Amino acid sequence: MDVFMTRREKLMSRMRAQQIDGYLVTQNVDIYYFTGTMQTGFLFIPSEGNPVFYVRRSLTRAQSESGVEVEELGSLRSLGERLKARYPSLFSNEGKAVIATEFDVLPVQLFHRLQAAIPMVEWKDGTMLVREIRMIKGPEEIEAIRRAAVVTDLAFEKAAASARIGMRDVELMTVIEATMREHGHMGLMRMRGYNQEIITGMVGSGRAMAIPTYFDGPAGGEGLGPASPQSSGNKTIGPNEPILVDIGCCIDGYVFDQTRTMVIGELDEELDRAYRVAEHILRRTEEKLVPGTSCEQLYIQSLELAEQAGLSEHYMGFRQDQVKFLGHGIGLEVDELPVLARGFRLPLEPGMVIAIEPKFTFPERGVVGIENTYLITDDGFEKLSVSREGLIRLGGR
Amino acid sequence: MDVFMTRREKLMSRMRAQQIDGYLVTQNVDIYYFTGTMQTGFLFIPSEGNPVFYVRRSLTRAQSESGVEVEELGSLRSLGERLKARYPSLFSNEGKAVIATEFDVLPVQLFHRLQAAIPMVEWKDGTMLVREIRMIKGPEEIEAIRRAAVVTDLAFEKAAASARIGMRDVELMTVIEATMREHGHMGLMRMRGYNQEIITGMVGSGRAMAIPTYFDGPAGGEGLGPASPQSSGNKTIGPNEPILVDIGCCIDGYVFDQTRTMVIGELDEELDRAYRVAEHILRRTEEKLVPGTSCEQLYIQSLELAEQAGLSEHYMGFRQDQVKFLGHGIGLEVDELPVLARGFRLPLEPGMVIAIEPKFTFPERGVVGIENTYLITDDGFEKLSVSREGLIRLGGR
Repeated sequence: MDVFMTRREKLMSRMRAQQIDGYLVTQNVDIYYFTGTMQTGFLFIPSEGNPVFYVRRSLTRAQSESGVEVEELGSLRSLGERLKARYPSLFSNEGKAVIATEFDVLPVQLFHRLQAAIPMVEWKDGTMLVREIRMIKGPEEIEAIRRAAVVTDLAFEKAAASARIGMRDVELMTVIEATMREHGHMGLMRMRGYNQEIITGMVGSGRAMAIPTYFDGPAGGEGLGPASPQSSGNKTIGPNEPILVDIGCCIDGYVFDQTRTMVIGELDEELDRAYRVAEHILRRTEEKLVPGTSCEQLYIQSLELAEQAGLSEHYMGFRQDQVKFLGHGIGLEVDELPVLARGFRLPLEPGMVIAIEPKFTFPERGVVGIENTYLITDDGFEKLSVSREGLIRLGGR
Repeated sequence: MDVFMTRREKLMSRMRAQQIDGYLVTQNVDIYYFTGTMQTGFLFIPSEGNPVFYVRRSLTRAQSESGVEVEELGSLRSLGERLKARYPSLFSNEGKAVIATEFDVLPVQLFHRLQAAIPMVEWKDGTMLVREIRMIKGPEEIEAIRRAAVVTDLAFEKAAASARIGMRDVELMTVIEATMREHGHMGLMRMRGYNQEIITGMVGSGRAMAIPTYFDGPAGGEGLGPASPQSSGNKTIGPNEPILVDIGCCIDGYVFDQTRTMVIGELDEELDRAYRVAEHILRRTEEKLVPGTSCEQLYIQSLELAEQAGLSEHYMGFRQDQVKFLGHGIGLEVDELPVLARGFRLPLEPGMVIAIEPKFTFPERGVVGIENTYLITDDGFEKLSVSREGLIRLGGR
């Protein structure tokens, strides 16, 4: 049984438990997860029986890559009739068939077209169904994330070797991106959230990195301007200021995420101490990184540690621009489940891959922190990050 | 009057003509277009009166960048009450207020939350309202696109100087991306279509570029694998095969798009001729590039020219993988209006910026073609592309 079939079986078993008759998978990443191809179209997975991938484009490529049966989509309007013909027992019930799809990403306009094309159906939000299955990674997924960890480390070391006083933040980012691209990075990290975008991460020095932005992370940065309002911009690196290197790449579809803090010279006492508090929070989090620990508990513990250090208002962003989490799942997307945040009471489980990123923001001065990505194992964790830790002091340049 | 106000006035005038009482702008790019900031939240534009941007994050940054009044969003659930309090005449009508939003990009889940938060409202699809206004560019937008054209040319010339036999396609792409990044490219081109993504364009040699993919363009390419199924991959450049350099960048939010075909050595007769037919189609299209010409007509003419050349089945993709257009508007996104395609009967207008990209695909051999971006002027066009044209023969390397 191939991995894609295993994933579909998991989905089908949950669908049956929730009385869902079919799942219409519409998003490129979800389609890839369940079929092995990322061509566009609609993948129909019935609660029992075989799936069909109705392909918009490219049919020939989907045929060569997908393990499931593929058909040309043709007119969307006929999709309902074709589903009925292909799955007569499902769509000829007395009651309406219950069909789930990804309400979190599917645009309203396309949903309305699907509703018109497939009438006599009760639509359900299947977002959590898919996201919860994707939360637990299989060995082949963990291997891809490991490869991404190695490429991220290569790029990080290249950045550490290249950083110079007077260099623009975006030039440092260019070094990172070029290294990653040459080693298989697709050029961006996919992100599920509406209006969220990330390319290779957040890299910036001093005050530029402390400028808040819309991005759902503890460090956004000034960016290149209001139309590209995050990550690296044209600020030049100065001595004795933190250089945040929060980077990741996407190898064979899988994302990795890691942060290190560098400085040319020395940080002042307050920032140096804040960095050490971030490391302390990470170590204390690691102690509880075992199956069964509540995700929420890890976040609450980190809040307490930040408070004990007198750094609450700097933790995970400054004051009103703080984000309310300590970490997030990663995989095909950078914003996967679980989230280490209030309200996420689900326990850690083996197979989860989580980026944990305690950071402190000081307006006009910069952001310091550390982030590793971890695999939850049967009896604890494995650190997937392979980069050296600690504040990276680069010496005079 | 600042440009953002001018844009809002255009929208408000159209809203009044269509009996729409308010527009709730939700998408980052649209919010930027109407306010000058790309922070997240909900921008409410009434058909008469002043707008309010309810900001989710970052309020401080939105305050400093936006020309419109901003307020903290707080709980989404209270948005309806706050709109009612702020716009009493609008929401206290006998009938329901008619509110438009972007159904083409807004996810179903968020729409359902908005419906719950703002009850007693009739929701309308406002997609075309915004896309049609954005179709006509102002001078400040055209200037940004011009800057992007210059950066694209720099990167193209760097690629022409760097291409070597034995170089991997993705290495050539890395040269292009690094050049663009150093000159202000944000790292990707934004794209509006669901499941569509593009980073710096489509660069590839020979058969790799002729492999079809889901991307809504005439050339997709093999990419790095099934999870990154477009543009450059690990194929190495060989002699006498077409190297397609379909690239663009995003400068100050604005996208540019251009294609050139290079070869180390010489193309065979058939591909060389196909390239010349592509240039011929472009020249014949330019002859009709004046206000009043129907967008559809330009596409139909190009089909006729391809057919006369005996190249119909290679035109804009091979056989069933063909796309059905000759060009597309560009601006803040790479897939703007107008589209030069069947059914688009609207006439060209001054201020439109259109990428026109006749291409021919030969399976196992490659893709050849040319693409320029044009501004429609009062009496014709201005070519915004500044790169040299013609098949770029690189000589032995």
